[in-house]
Order: sequence, then C-alpha cells, then structure tokens
Amino acid sequence: MQVTLELQAADGAHFVATNAAGNRVEADGSEALGGKDLGMRPMELFLASLGSCSAMDILAILRKQRQPIEGLSVRVAGQRADAVPAVYEAIEVVFTAKGQIDPDKLQQAAALSVEKYCSVISMIRDSVKVTFRTELAG
Amino acid sequence: MQVTLELQAADGAHFVATNAAGNRVEADGSEALGGKDLGMRPMELFLASLGSCSAMDILAILRKQRQPIEGLSVRVAGQRADAVPAVYEAIEVVFTAKGQIDPDKLQQAAALSVEKYCSVISMIRDSVKVTFRTELAG
Repeated sequence: MQVTLELQAADGAHFVATNAAGNRVEADGSEALGGKDLGMRPMELFLASLGSCSAMDILAILRKQRQPIEGLSVRVAGQRADAVPAVYEAIEVVFTAKGQIDPDKLQQAAALSVEKYCSVISMIRDSVKVTFRTELAG
Repeated sequence: MQVTLELQAADGAHFVATNAAGNRVEADGSEALGGKDLGMRPMELFLASLGSCSAMDILAILRKQRQPIEGLSVRVAGQRADAVPAVYEAIEVVFTAKGQIDPDKLQQAAALSVEKYCSVISMIRDSVKVTFRTELAG
C-alpha cells in the first residue's frame, strides 16, 4: 500500500494525502507550526485508522454470523505521554452498534478484533495499552 | 485526543471520522465488505498518519535551522504480512523537499524524526522496520 502527502503552502503545515484510488485525506499541524485546523492532526489520523480498522473487523464478523447490524459508531480516545515522543500510552475504543444484535456476539466480535485481528492494534500491541467496551443503541 | 467514526450505510463499510475541531476523514473497507472506494482503507490512513507525523517534525526542525523549505512531499509505502493480522512488516518513507536546503540538514532532520521524535513511528518501532531516504527537488 502507498500514500503520498504534499505540503499545501510553504509557511503552513497543511498536507493533503492521496492513495492509489485517488481518495484524499487532509492533515494539519499545530498552531506553532503554522497549522490552521485544515485537517486532522497526525495523531488523530492514527485514531481514525485504528477505529476504522477495528470497525471493519466487527462488521465482517457480525455479518458472517447473520447478526442484523444496522449501524455502528466507534469512539476512540487516546491518552498521550507528557514527553517527546508524545506516544499514546493508553487508548480506549467504545463500539456502539444498532440493531437486534446479541450483546454477547458484539462483545466477542470486538474482543476478536482488538485482541487478534486488527492490524493497526497489532502493530502497537507491545507499546500501547488498548482497552474496549461495547454498547447497543436503541 | 478523541475521534469518532460513524458507519454511513448499514450494508456498506464507509465510515466518516470526525475530530473535536470538526475535521472529517473518510474510510472505506474492502469490496467483500461492501466497500466502494469512498475513502482510504484503514491501513492507508495509517500510512497517512505516519507520513504526516514525520513531515511535521521535519518542517519544525528545518524551520528552526532557518532552512528555506519551500515544499515537502512524502511518499510512504508499506509491505504487509501475508497473514492475519496483515500488519506492515516494512515501511519506507521518502521525503522530497524543495528549496535551497542543505542536503545534510534534510537527512539529519529525517533521521531525528524517524529514529526519535515521530510519535506514530515510536509506537510501532518494536514491530515494524521503518526505513527512509531524502531527496531535494529542483
């Protein structure tokens, strides 16, 4: 897989990232670096990557089990170290599913993703504590 | 930091991620999961996160050194494992800077970021081999 990023203005920190299919993602830096909130910060993009990675697993598992999943939202919150590099020390993921879903199957799907299948979480397993919980929405 | 993601259609795999400032990023899944290329794949988002993270470091370092950086593009390519989880086994980052920049300072800035400052790379250091090179564009 490959992504290219291009700085948009010499005095800023706004990058546009593009993948092979042409999808674009915007990133921006801190105010100190000339950032203007024109995109997510890199460490927010990381949370989006982790949350979407894990959400895809959950969709795949629940659909294979013919659970009627009608909606899925994911909240990913990370606690950063007060040092350089300001890595995440802990990340919590909350999965909220909609539909007539067996809550045990939802919990099992989330556990399988977080503990085994999700590629993003697997790459940080030795350095970041990732916890999760699941909820069913009305 | 916190990001929330919301599935856009029950039969698809398209998520919109939003940060506290309201910036949006789109992710989509594989065709098998109902994906329609409406956003980057989660593992592409990861490369965008890594590339932007490291690029911010390089901007900060070169500007502090009063190097006249006029442009910066970053190509991030990852080689995934042929297994589940399909983590990256190796990632190569190529930084191409524009301007009358000392090539040694560019190389040093990239090395400092990849080997020390970049938070995303730091979190995967024990599991993924990350290499880099630098170039000056006309």
